Amino acid sequence: MKTLLFTIALTSTLVASSLQQEARNFGLTSIPESKTELYKLIDNSKNPITDAKVSLGKMLFFDPRLSRSGFISCNSCHNLAMGGGDNLPAAVGHKWTVNPHHLSSPTVYNAVFSSSQFWDGRDPDLEKQAQGPIQAGPEMAATKSHVEAVVNSMPGYKKAFKHAYGQDVKIDFEKVTDTIATFERTLVTPSRYDKFLRGCDKALSSDEKEGLKTFIKVGCVSCHNGIALGGEMQGFALTAKYKYENIGDFRGNKNGLVKVPTLRNIAQTAPYFHNGAVKTLQEAIVEMGRIQLGVAVSSDEAESIEIFLKSLTGKKPYLGKVILPDASDTTPKPNLN
Amino acid sequence: MKTLLFTIALTSTLVASSLQQEARNFGLTSIPESKTELYKLIDNSKNPITDAKVSLGKMLFFDPRLSRSGFISCNSCHNLAMGGGDNLPAAVGHKWTVNPHHLSSPTVYNAVFSSSQFWDGRDPDLEKQAQGPIQAGPEMAATKSHVEAVVNSMPGYKKAFKHAYGQDVKIDFEKVTDTIATFERTLVTPSRYDKFLRGCDKALSSDEKEGLKTFIKVGCVSCHNGIALGGEMQGFALTAKYKYENIGDFRGNKNGLVKVPTLRNIAQTAPYFHNGAVKTLQEAIVEMGRIQLGVAVSSDEAESIEIFLKSLTGKKPYLGKVILPDASDTTPKPNLN
Repeated sequence: MKTLLFTIALTSTLVASSLQQEARNFGLTSIPESKTELYKLIDNSKNPITDAKVSLGKMLFFDPRLSRSGFISCNSCHNLAMGGGDNLPAAVGHKWTVNPHHLSSPTVYNAVFSSSQFWDGRDPDLEKQAQGPIQAGPEMAATKSHVEAVVNSMPGYKKAFKHAYGQDVKIDFEKVTDTIATFERTLVTPSRYDKFLRGCDKALSSDEKEGLKTFIKVGCVSCHNGIALGGEMQGFALTAKYKYENIGDFRGNKNGLVKVPTLRNIAQTAPYFHNGAVKTLQEAIVEMGRIQLGVAVSSDEAESIEIFLKSLTGKKPYLGKVILPDASDTTPKPNLN
Repeated sequence: MKTLLFTIALTSTLVASSLQQEARNFGLTSIPESKTELYKLIDNSKNPITDAKVSLGKMLFFDPRLSRSGFISCNSCHNLAMGGGDNLPAAVGHKWTVNPHHLSSPTVYNAVFSSSQFWDGRDPDLEKQAQGPIQAGPEMAATKSHVEAVVNSMPGYKKAFKHAYGQDVKIDFEKVTDTIATFERTLVTPSRYDKFLRGCDKALSSDEKEGLKTFIKVGCVSCHNGIALGGEMQGFALTAKYKYENIGDFRGNKNGLVKVPTLRNIAQTAPYFHNGAVKTLQEAIVEMGRIQLGVAVSSDEAESIEIFLKSLTGKKPYLGKVILPDASDTTPKPNLN
C-alpha cells in the first residue's frame, strides 16, 4: 500500500512538473516572490522606485484635479478597484468624448511588464506613457502648465515632492508623470498561476491545468507568453479578417503591429480587443484562434482555456489610505469645457 | 513660584473652559469618542449598521457599473479621497451634463448628522437620498432595474449580500441603496476641534480659539451649530441679495429654506454655496455675514474665522482595500448614451 501511494504521488508530481516544464519551455514565467528579483524586472534605473515616490505617485494617480475638468483622474479609466481598466468598449474622457479611434483603455496592472506602451506600442515605458492621457484632448485634456500649476498650488504636494526628491526639487510636468509611473510600476498582481509555475502543483485545479494545456496546445502561448502572457508587438488578423474590424480606424503601428494584451486579470477586463468589440472571454478566445492562428477553437477548448485564464486573476496590491492634499485658493479652477 | 505657576495654569484652564462652555451654550457639540455614543447618533433602527453591510456598501459606493454609463460611481461626485465632494461649482454627470439647477455636490462626510438631505432638504435620510442621484438623468442615469440586474449578475455581490442579509435576501434597488446609506452613515470625521470641545484645551491653537470666538461673536454659530456645524434648514439671503443669485435657478424648498452646509472639512470642499459660485472660504465668510446676518465681516475677522474653520478638517475613516466583484457575461453592458 505504501509503495502504491508513493508511486501515485510520484507520478502526479512528474505529470505536474512536466506541465510546468512545458509552460516554461514556451516562455511562460512567473512573477518573482522575492522583492529583489521582482525589482530587477519592474524598476527603472533612470527613475528608481522608492516608497516616498510610490506613495506620492498613488495620490497623483487618484487626483482628478490634474485633469482640465477636475473630474477625471488616471483611476477613472484605469480603475484599480476593478481590473485596472474601465470595462468600456472605448475609453471616455473630457466632455464625454469617446476615444476617436474607438480604442479601449488597457489595464494598468502589470503594464510594467510590457515591452512598450499603448495599443500601437508607441511609447517605450510607463514614464513616457503617463504623459499621454493627461494631455490628450479626449482624455484628461490638461496642459503641462495646468498640471504644474495644480501640483505647485498645494502645500501637501510640495511637501510630498520634497520628501520624495529632496528640498530643491522642481515640480514640473515630467516629475509628476515620472512619479505616477513609479507608482504604476508597483501594480503587479501575482496569482495562483505564479505559485504553480514555481513548482506548487496544487496551486491550480485540475481543470485549470487542463486549461493551461489547451492554451499551449491550441497555440495561444505563441503570442501570450513571458511574465505578462502578452506585452509584445505582433501582427494582427494574420489568418482571417477580424469580424469587428470596422469599429474604429485603428490598424496598429506603421508596420501593422498591435500590442498583445496581458492576460493577467483578463477575466476582469472585458470587453476585449483593441476596440472593445468582443464582449465575452469565450468569444475572444475563439476569434483569436480564427484570426491569429487559423484554428477553429471548439467550444470545449474555449471553455477549458477560459478556466485557465480565470486563474490569472491576481492579488491586487494593498494601496493603503488614499487621501489627496488640500487645494489652496491659488489652485487652478476646474474647466468643464 | 509654585503658586504663580499654579495661578497661571488655573487661569488658562478657566479661560479655556469658558470658551468651551460658551461653544456648548451655542449648541456646538462634539463627535463622541465612544462607538456606543456615536452609534446612537448615526445608526438607523430600520437599517442597522453592521460590518458586513458597511463593507458591501463601500463596494457599491465605489462601483461605476451601477450607473448607466458604467463610468460614474457615487465616489465620482462624493470623492472620499478629497473632502467628500467633487470641488466643482456644479455637479457633472451622465453625458457630461451639468446639474440643471447649477447645484454643487454636498459632501457625503458627516452627512449623517444632517436633519435632512439635498440642498432643499427633500429627503429625510441617507437611505432615501441614495436613491436619487443613481436614477437622476444628469447624474448616474440608471434605472432601478439596471441597478438590480448589475448587482444580481455578479456572484461576488450575491455572496456579499447573503453574508450581510442572510441566504434569502432579495437584492432589489432599495436593498442596494440602503446598503450604500449604511456605509455613508459611517463616514464621520472627528477632528482636533472635537477634542477641544471635550475639554482638551491644547487641541486647538490660540489662533484657532480666537477664530472660534470670532465665529461665535459674529453670529455664524446661529445657523452653523450642532454636531455638524450645520445640517438644518434655514432661510437664505435674509438681510441682502446673494451676489451670485443669478447662477442657477435654485431658490430653496417651497418655503424658500436652504440646507445649511456642514462646516466640517469645509476647507476641502470649495467652491462654496449651493451654486458653487463662491471660490474662497474668506469670500464665503464675508458674503454669509452680509446676506445672512447683515454684518460687515472685516477681513481680519474673516481670516480669524477661516483659521478656526480649517481646524474642522477631520480624520477620514480608514476604508481598507477597495476591490469590486468581477462582472459576469450577463452583466448589463455600459451605455454612454
